[in-house]
Order: sequence, then C-alpha cells, then structure tokens
Amino acid sequence: QVRRGVQGLFRTLQCVKRSGGLLTVCLSRSIQAAGSQLGQSKDYALPNASWSQDMLDLYNRFLDMTKDGLWKRIPSYNNILDHIPGKLTYEKRKDTRLFLRSIDAEGAGFEYVMFLNTSEKRVVCLFQPGSYLEGHPGFAHGGSIATIIDSTIGSCAISVAGKVMTANLSIDYVNPVPLGSVVLVDSKADKVEGRKVFLSCKMQSVDGNTLHAEATGKDVLRVVGGCWALGWELLGRCQNFPISGA
Amino acid sequence: QVRRGVQGLFRTLQCVKRSGGLLTVCLSRSIQAAGSQLGQSKDYALPNASWSQDMLDLYNRFLDMTKDGLWKRIPSYNNILDHIPGKLTYEKRKDTRLFLRSIDAEGAGFEYVMFLNTSEKRVVCLFQPGSYLEGHPGFAHGGSIATIIDSTIGSCAISVAGKVMTANLSIDYVNPVPLGSVVLVDSKADKVEGRKVFLSCKMQSVDGNTLHAEATGKDVLRVVGGCWALGWELLGRCQNFPISGA
Repeated sequence: QVRRGVQGLFRTLQCVKRSGGLLTVCLSRSIQAAGSQLGQSKDYALPNASWSQDMLDLYNRFLDMTKDGLWKRIPSYNNILDHIPGKLTYEKRKDTRLFLRSIDAEGAGFEYVMFLNTSEKRVVCLFQPGSYLEGHPGFAHGGSIATIIDSTIGSCAISVAGKVMTANLSIDYVNPVPLGSVVLVDSKADKVEGRKVFLSCKMQSVDGNTLHAEATGKDVLRVVGGCWALGWELLGRCQNFPISGA
Repeated sequence: QVRRGVQGLFRTLQCVKRSGGLLTVCLSRSIQAAGSQLGQSKDYALPNASWSQDMLDLYNRFLDMTKDGLWKRIPSYNNILDHIPGKLTYEKRKDTRLFLRSIDAEGAGFEYVMFLNTSEKRVVCLFQPGSYLEGHPGFAHGGSIATIIDSTIGSCAISVAGKVMTANLSIDYVNPVPLGSVVLVDSKADKVEGRKVFLSCKMQSVDGNTLHAEATGKDVLRVVGGCWALGWELLGRCQNFPISGA
C-alpha cells in the first residue's frame, strides 16, 4: 500500500506546475501528509521542492526499474531507531538524529535516495549535496562525500551480511563535486571472507563522464548475532535482536 | 586584542556556576556579544554551554600551552569565506555553510576546537560529537569521524603547504565513539614530496587508552598558486590569491 501510495504520488509529481526548475512547495506537503496518514515517521527518500530536474529524472528512471521487483527503493528516516523493527531493548532517544538527516531545511543538507538490487549485491544512491555541506567554496566537503559513500556501502554490506560496522574506508578524491549538482554513488559487494565484506564504490556524474570519487579495498566488519540497519524493511531478516554497544 | 579578549573570557568561564556539568547559557551569550562588539563573524571554536567538563579541561590545558606561542588556537566560522582574508573575487554567498558548522543547536553537531603547533607540523583537534551525528545507536557516524579527521589533517596540511585539496583519505575504524564523549584528533605532517603532503592522524580517548580511529598513508594534493583555508590568520601567508574552481 505504501509502494502504491508513493508511485501515485510520483505520477502526480510529474504534473505539478514548475517554475524556475523547482517544484512548488505543495509537493513536500503532500508527502508529509501521506506519511502521517500511514502513521509512520517521515520518509525523507522522496522528492521534495529542492530536488533539481536531474535528480527527479534519475529518481524517475530508478523508480521505473523497481516495477519488476529487481530494484527496491530504501526508505530513510531521521532517527536511526526508526529503521529498527520490533521491540527495542534500547530506550528510544528522540533527541538524536541520523547524521545524514540532521539538517532540517530542504535542499540544504544531504538530499539522497538509495535503491537496492539484492541479486546484483548493489546499492545505488542518487545524491544532491546542499549548500550546508560546503568545503572548498562552492563544492561539497570531503567529509560529506565520505559520509554518503560510507552510508551507501554500509547499506550494501547490510544487504549481504546483516549487522555490520565499517572497519576501513579509503577514498580517492578525483574531481570536486559542485554544491547542488547530482551524482550517482554506485556500490557493490565484491566478496565475503569470514567476518569481512569487501565492497567497492564509485561516485560519478549523471552522464558518467566524470569520476568524482572512488572507494577501493573497503572492508566492512560483519558482526554476528543479528542485524539492524537502514533498509531493514526491504531485507526482511532483522528480527528480535538485542541492541547493545554498537 | 582578540586574544586577550578570549583569554579574559576564559578566566571568567572558570568562575561560572555549574549545574549538572553544564555551563549556564549566559556563557555563550557573552561570547556572541564579544564577537559582535569586535565586528567579526562568530568564532565557534570557543567554549559554549554544551561543552562537557572533559572538553573544558582539555581546552584549558591547550589554552595554557598557547601562552609561550608554540601552540595557537585556530578560529572557526560557519562560512568558509570568513576564513579567507582580503578582497574576494568570489561573490560572497551567505546561503552556504561550512559542513562542520551546519548544525545550529549548541552541542548537537560538531563541537570542536583545533590547536596548531607549526614547529611540530601538528594540529590537535578536541572533538565532542553531538546527538545529531548519530550512526549506530548512541555512537558517532563513521562519516562524521571521517569529516573531523579530514578537517584536522587538512588544517595541518595547509600549515605546511598552503592551498591544498584532499587526494586520498583512508581511515581504520577501531573503536566506536560514543555521542557526547570527548576525543583527541592528533594529526602530523610526516613529509612533503613534490606536490604531495603525507600526513597521519590518530583519534584517541582523552586518557589515551582507547584508539578510536587512525588515518594512515593519507596524502593531500598541494595546489600551487596561493592558499586559502581554515586558520589563515595564524599562518599569516595567504594574501591576494584568486579563488577559482576549487
């Protein structure tokens, strides 16, 4: 029902009157309303008024690919505990925020949505860095690039190994990413060895002509005994696990 | 005059009545007032009501070490352009924010202050991750750790090579960092080879007993033809450079 809701909303989205490349604000209001009708936390991995045409076009393309079930959109909430199903042994702390959803103003922080392809062990993230992620003047901070890459490969690792923690992250910064542009973060689990998952990741321009960053030789420590994470709803194998330490 | 002002403020700070380990709010108000009296942007690398006793104690210790001039506190503003002296060829964009200063609520985001020792080619950052930097429940997101490490080694690289851009960042995550705790990020420029600066960095607990993260083999590309950066006021050699592209 949620899926149908989102797709219906997206069809509506394409008819919304535009001005200056920005959707009108009523769009994000409709999404919030839809979320609260379902009695759920707000899902931020949905179009809002700050998304550029490039971002919307890409989102459209990936949403089309979800129709046959090979790809799935990963929902995103601003509190990590909303990603965890079932009973919580951890007292819900409403004062915390998932780092990537800590900036409230639409378009100022991390605008992103991830799509998962379980058979390919692949997660692709569409990312539009906002004006509050600045490093060098006009460009995304290297730390913000590391953050979106860590999150994307983390989601990918979870899809193959369950509960994980990053053990090493190595990033080559090739070309700076202008604020407000749209890039594709494409990650893949290459192999699993014992408790380690090895992943690779590329951040590229939408046309594929510019490589912005590359994460190589990354391994993620697999923690036995349960899983928790972004996208648990899609993976469907996280149940009744204790949440302790990390 | 600014230095004297800050130190005077800090002496006042030690007399402020405490309750529950938190300074009263009037402290940060005084700092804001002092900043506006000087006609400058607000410097965020100063104590505020959210700083824990550990953070304040460390800050005190480092501030003491600045007295003989070997160590210097690096000021920190929320717009990168405030770090750049002289005439700007880049139109000042007030809508952007330095990524590390993008969260407004005191104590929720990156609370940090850096100290530079030019003769040792070393920058130490005191870092207290706030509740909006969450990754695993209760712990700082790996991306936020990458961000503070990138910034610390970036400041260190600038002190030895002027204008720089990060070329590679490789981080080993050893122990998770609890939200609200205080860690020391200690970076050092190991060598300069042509246009590259090689740096290393450790993130440790205040007592030095826990290694949280380590950045190894990092190299930062040195860009010829001027410099801009965090801490330019201390380095005193950034003048009349063009700001273009990156």
